[in-house]
Amino acid sequence: MPLSEFALIERYFRTCGAQRADVRLGVGDDAALLQLPVGSELVAATDTLVAGVHFPLGSPPASIGHRALAVNLSDLAAMGARPAWALLALTLPESQEAWLEEFAAGLGRLARAQEVALVGGDTTRGPLCVSVTLLGYVPAGQALRRAGGRAGDVLFVSGTPGDAAAGLALEQGRLQAPAATIAYLRERFLLPKPRMALGERLRSHASACIDVSDGLLADAGKLAAASGTGVELSYEAVPLSAPLLAAVGDARAREFALTGGDDYELCFAVHAESVPTLLTQLPPERWGYARIGVLRAAAGAVAVRDGTVMEFSHSGYQHFV
Amino acid sequence: MPLSEFALIERYFRTCGAQRADVRLGVGDDAALLQLPVGSELVAATDTLVAGVHFPLGSPPASIGHRALAVNLSDLAAMGARPAWALLALTLPESQEAWLEEFAAGLGRLARAQEVALVGGDTTRGPLCVSVTLLGYVPAGQALRRAGGRAGDVLFVSGTPGDAAAGLALEQGRLQAPAATIAYLRERFLLPKPRMALGERLRSHASACIDVSDGLLADAGKLAAASGTGVELSYEAVPLSAPLLAAVGDARAREFALTGGDDYELCFAVHAESVPTLLTQLPPERWGYARIGVLRAAAGAVAVRDGTVMEFSHSGYQHFV
Repeated sequence: MPLSEFALIERYFRTCGAQRADVRLGVGDDAALLQLPVGSELVAATDTLVAGVHFPLGSPPASIGHRALAVNLSDLAAMGARPAWALLALTLPESQEAWLEEFAAGLGRLARAQEVALVGGDTTRGPLCVSVTLLGYVPAGQALRRAGGRAGDVLFVSGTPGDAAAGLALEQGRLQAPAATIAYLRERFLLPKPRMALGERLRSHASACIDVSDGLLADAGKLAAASGTGVELSYEAVPLSAPLLAAVGDARAREFALTGGDDYELCFAVHAESVPTLLTQLPPERWGYARIGVLRAAAGAVAVRDGTVMEFSHSGYQHFV
Repeated sequence: MPLSEFALIERYFRTCGAQRADVRLGVGDDAALLQLPVGSELVAATDTLVAGVHFPLGSPPASIGHRALAVNLSDLAAMGARPAWALLALTLPESQEAWLEEFAAGLGRLARAQEVALVGGDTTRGPLCVSVTLLGYVPAGQALRRAGGRAGDVLFVSGTPGDAAAGLALEQGRLQAPAATIAYLRERFLLPKPRMALGERLRSHASACIDVSDGLLADAGKLAAASGTGVELSYEAVPLSAPLLAAVGDARAREFALTGGDDYELCFAVHAESVPTLLTQLPPERWGYARIGVLRAAAGAVAVRDGTVMEFSHSGYQHFV
């Protein structure tokens, strides 16, 4: 039995996220009223997931809800920001209560874990499309940016890129893999874990930072371009997960890692003289990141293996190419 | 020739809106950085327009761009807030430069007129769908809300409701009207003018306020429900435009005004003892609003004609009924 739009919003989304004292007025009026901490700047990002473009048709609704928030959380992590409030624009072909319940559960679990309140939304009928706008804050003047790197900076990446791209290929039936690796890789696509704690810590260390969502090589290239430099990644240094290596072997794993999308890891530059402090204060084995290359004066983004520049056919995801 | 997503965003949207000094970082990084005025609360709203649901397929792209921002501006007007920054999530079937140019022109004209900067966005491929999140601010504790009215308050509406619903009916070929009225009514649907200046002024006068987007009777009912009251509208008092009256006659004009959508006017309540001050400080003939009814203790929203409650078959637009 279809619910009215108002009942639907009320039922699934009003209490879906965290409860925060700085929400003066949440879902249910014409707009939300929010109290920003004194001395901070507002940080705002928006990202859309479209069925058949950003996730396979028939994806688990809880994963769609999780990912719609996660992709935005990752953008805030890349700024060194703390997330606080989300607005949801949900377009649905029809009002299916079971689907909505699972979607809201997936979104809500991640929102509560990250202390994000859902403060506004709009639910409309149409082809499945989910846009989340995420708001947060950062101490004024301290946000990380893509610009700020300089030639000679050391480049790092968190986590093990490529897992999510392999997980998506498994979801889509484009890849076969040993049974033992499948659950891990699928979860890496379906339920990415943005690096919020690392992002906030990096404000004291990084010269530049970007969220890896369109492929490591492409996104490192964007960081470099914004910093007025180029970037050279070490093919051998890219960190790979054991399940990815077991699933596709070394060469394909590195290609997934360098050119696959949907990682939601952080790629960041650190001035060479600041690297020892970084490694001491944020031990890589505890915080889960690895050195993968350097920023250099020459423009462009390349991966180098034994001194030779590698060629890749696909260097990042674009929707309108 | 298709542009890449990055070139497309760069080309049409980076300079589309107003330039504001409080934008520390706009389009082009992982998130925007914004400086809220000291002593203010953040106000946030999001609204989606879907092709075939919120506007006819084939609508002028400039109108779609205008309306995507206007519907959110109207939400902020209803809070008494001043708009500042917008984020755009645009899903497009394909990258058509002519369409994008007109869309961005329509959005940009209204954004610049209202001093709104476009600070973020996401462009994806899929069925046409436009979500705008609009951010603004209001002096802390002074925002207008739907709650706050009480029985005995006088209810007002700005503008002439019903014009936009008739304009949409004309667009869709569901209505025939004299040629002299068509341009006015169509423009009222295609290019609504949200009541930003009135909304800010009403902070000193109104006890409650709502944006009229789903039909005057339905939206007045929501204001009343949030205020813990009912509402009685006077059928005869609803202000009607001369073109609407000329196009459809008195009875149908009042039905359009009470139950049509897409007005983007303000409906607001004022404590009875504050009405003389309102009328003096904001003369109705200059500010364009009219008295249409009262809040009452008995729940529900009714329109009354000569002491008799009117029945309407459709009391507001809902997407999932």
